[in-house]
Amino acid sequence: MVENMRRVRTFGLLGTGVIGGGWAARALHFGIDVIAADVKPEMEDWIRGAVANAESALARLTSAPLPPKGTLTFTTDLGEMARRADFIQENIPEQLELKRRVLAEASRHAPAEVVIASSTSGLMPTDLQRDMQFPQRFLVAHPFNPVYLLPLVELVGGRDTSPRTLDAAQAFYTYIGMHPLRVRSEVPGHLTDRLQEALWREILHLVNDGVATTGELDDAIVYGPGLRWAAMGTNLIYHLAGGETGMRHMLRQFGPCLKWPWTRLEAPELTEQLIDRMVEGTQAQAAGRSIRELERLRDDYLVAIQQVLRQFDIGAGSTLRAVEERLYADSAASLQVAGEEAATAGQPLKTLETEVRPEWIDRNGRMAEGRCLQVFGDAADALFRLAGMNGVDRSAGGAFFAVESHVLHHAPAGALESIFVTTQVLGVDGNGVHLFHTLKRRSDGRVLATGEQHYEYASAAQGAAAPMHTAVRAKLDGIRAAHAKLRAPAQAGRHVVFPGK
Amino acid sequence: MVENMRRVRTFGLLGTGVIGGGWAARALHFGIDVIAADVKPEMEDWIRGAVANAESALARLTSAPLPPKGTLTFTTDLGEMARRADFIQENIPEQLELKRRVLAEASRHAPAEVVIASSTSGLMPTDLQRDMQFPQRFLVAHPFNPVYLLPLVELVGGRDTSPRTLDAAQAFYTYIGMHPLRVRSEVPGHLTDRLQEALWREILHLVNDGVATTGELDDAIVYGPGLRWAAMGTNLIYHLAGGETGMRHMLRQFGPCLKWPWTRLEAPELTEQLIDRMVEGTQAQAAGRSIRELERLRDDYLVAIQQVLRQFDIGAGSTLRAVEERLYADSAASLQVAGEEAATAGQPLKTLETEVRPEWIDRNGRMAEGRCLQVFGDAADALFRLAGMNGVDRSAGGAFFAVESHVLHHAPAGALESIFVTTQVLGVDGNGVHLFHTLKRRSDGRVLATGEQHYEYASAAQGAAAPMHTAVRAKLDGIRAAHAKLRAPAQAGRHVVFPGK
Repeated sequence: MVENMRRVRTFGLLGTGVIGGGWAARALHFGIDVIAADVKPEMEDWIRGAVANAESALARLTSAPLPPKGTLTFTTDLGEMARRADFIQENIPEQLELKRRVLAEASRHAPAEVVIASSTSGLMPTDLQRDMQFPQRFLVAHPFNPVYLLPLVELVGGRDTSPRTLDAAQAFYTYIGMHPLRVRSEVPGHLTDRLQEALWREILHLVNDGVATTGELDDAIVYGPGLRWAAMGTNLIYHLAGGETGMRHMLRQFGPCLKWPWTRLEAPELTEQLIDRMVEGTQAQAAGRSIRELERLRDDYLVAIQQVLRQFDIGAGSTLRAVEERLYADSAASLQVAGEEAATAGQPLKTLETEVRPEWIDRNGRMAEGRCLQVFGDAADALFRLAGMNGVDRSAGGAFFAVESHVLHHAPAGALESIFVTTQVLGVDGNGVHLFHTLKRRSDGRVLATGEQHYEYASAAQGAAAPMHTAVRAKLDGIRAAHAKLRAPAQAGRHVVFPGK
Repeated sequence: MVENMRRVRTFGLLGTGVIGGGWAARALHFGIDVIAADVKPEMEDWIRGAVANAESALARLTSAPLPPKGTLTFTTDLGEMARRADFIQENIPEQLELKRRVLAEASRHAPAEVVIASSTSGLMPTDLQRDMQFPQRFLVAHPFNPVYLLPLVELVGGRDTSPRTLDAAQAFYTYIGMHPLRVRSEVPGHLTDRLQEALWREILHLVNDGVATTGELDDAIVYGPGLRWAAMGTNLIYHLAGGETGMRHMLRQFGPCLKWPWTRLEAPELTEQLIDRMVEGTQAQAAGRSIRELERLRDDYLVAIQQVLRQFDIGAGSTLRAVEERLYADSAASLQVAGEEAATAGQPLKTLETEVRPEWIDRNGRMAEGRCLQVFGDAADALFRLAGMNGVDRSAGGAFFAVESHVLHHAPAGALESIFVTTQVLGVDGNGVHLFHTLKRRSDGRVLATGEQHYEYASAAQGAAAPMHTAVRAKLDGIRAAHAKLRAPAQAGRHVVFPGK
């Protein structure tokens, strides 16, 4: 019996490919030392390179304070690794006989209280642990590439695996930032790869039959279901698609399709027992939340993810970016008219209308202060477009950059509140503008924040201050002249006032 | 022959369920009028409710200027709808005979130059257009729920569909913010649903066999492959997993697994021709970008998506949130020591170390100004934790809120630059603190921005200013006393200075 598993200070790797490198980077990042064993000495350079590459992404995952990074050592001696490690992870090629032999060898060197895990994508733990010493400390722990960023790890015990081993493994993987999924039955491919493999084989058939290219088949996922799968699986998603009665309705409506040739995989018979299991399972997932509530959650993350992807100009983010460019171009003329009317009437310009996005809310439940300045930046951008700076074709020249900003936070804003910004032009000179923004809540007109900013024009290429385009200057001068009729805002020219000592 | 398709001002809906409602919301949002036809008059209220629900998410998708919203009208008369619409979208139940009959009827009312599309999930256009008048203006245009947020729409022509119809449909769907995917062969389930259906049927088998619950199977996707699928499909992802030689290596390594029972779906024979097609396809997708370059793109979006999901405390975002809470708790003691040492030595505290995240970069290629204030907010948060405010258990009391902020933007920061913030405590009183932050680049120590802030303590429950906890006050007083030895920062007490007139 394995009574007490070791506290993991040193994580041993058996094999150092893409998966081994990913494990190393993750463990080191969370302060665990790593000893990596590979028969090929040239893999030392390789794994150090892989860790460095991974670290550049990992470093951005959280700004929470991390313990000092672990230290990586490398050996070609499996036995040395197995004697020094507190927890061993095997990542060698997917061949049963090879894995079985190497795991058995490692088990002869590693003390009984050291957990040994295999990263196998689909081999079964009972088959792998057969020849090991102390097989009760063995499990399958299947991660996903890139291991350093994806939290999923499937934990599967074999016939001889002890529950303590699974508990110890779960605690360790959680410590290094993962989400362990306990798989209750040994099946080839575990859970995730069975699902991935079904999709993958359907892809292979479609390419083989000449129906579609790999690119078309990837597009078929990333612009649609893939966005949903980032946070909700097929079952919960179908539960939502079923309307008020959820999964039961969905199975009734789409049940007959299970007999249709919509994939080469034949479905099981849709018995009452299966329907009940599907319904009970999704009810448990909903955990008392209504369809409407879950839809709102789904919609919130779908919006936020598309905005993230826009930054990278990839997938649905490219679509969003393209439509925005068209909207900016389409609106240029009408913005111009509205802007001139407001300016002539001596009114501040309404430069932005939006809602407080849920991801702008901080841990205290209020719109974070940085988001106010972000909104003012967007408002300034709208003003510059109105003044003739083309938001799309920037090739012609420079851009405006903030050099100084002052924000007064008057009142908190909550998620999904409708807000708008008005902007007053206080001053214009050859290469700069002086702006004053007011952020208000639409429902009651309450001022939530004010912002004063100095923007300078700079040539984007050299980044140096430069005179702005004369047409843009003329337009801004026109607005400023009209705004000169407005009262100067009381908060302009104010510095941070701290009453205490 | 259909020569010129209509400019779409009015979008006609035939059927108003979840899909019809989604279409309505999307079209209205992009300024298109909608006329919805349903035999059940009670569906008018339903669709208006669905549009209102959708709009609360849609309103947050972009802050680009939209045209005035379209107007929704409802009729129980299919003929009226078909005579008034410029483009018709059918969304009735998935029954071939029913769809065929209703489409034929609509086609007798709609002028020849009006495109008629079916939202069918998997029926084939040649079968659907059989009895229509002017069948050349018919196509399948299959969207995904929620139609108002997911950009994918599969376009499939039947035997009689004209290329102009497909072009006109592509232009219209692009206009309303979608990504049309032209499906070149008619197959049951088109492309996306074949892939989804294979995964879905594998799920049904696993639930049927008692291997896993629906929740476990959803977790098997959302914590791993689902995150990747938000922006890259299986083919490109496997190309990346193959290391330097990409898909070819991957097929060589995992080819034998295709014979293993990792799903109930049998794979096609992995012939040389199939391998070539897979390799050529993924090479085309890579479009000259190296594996390393694509890995960086993948890692960037995986990091950013997890940060978004953290805000919603869902899936991988919950995992990240939990590990961060532990890290904050673990570090409290050591932060305390470091903080006291720095304070005693009269040094500003290093409150934050991070990298400029790619999603912080604005359209001009620089870290957006709002992000500077966000970083200063995070630095202030770290200081408050150091002073004894527990970032995790806030139930005990209130929190600090920014009431005034001033930022000087000294120099631009680019993506992935390592940066850090030091914070000096300028003042403390019963319920507030006065802070001064400096944001520097690590590589050359250059000051990128400075920030001055006034924070007030408030009880989170009432949101009213309140005296801070005496222990927190004592800690902040101690730091302020130590910092009194430091020179007062030149930029403190400064208001926005605009040189021009």
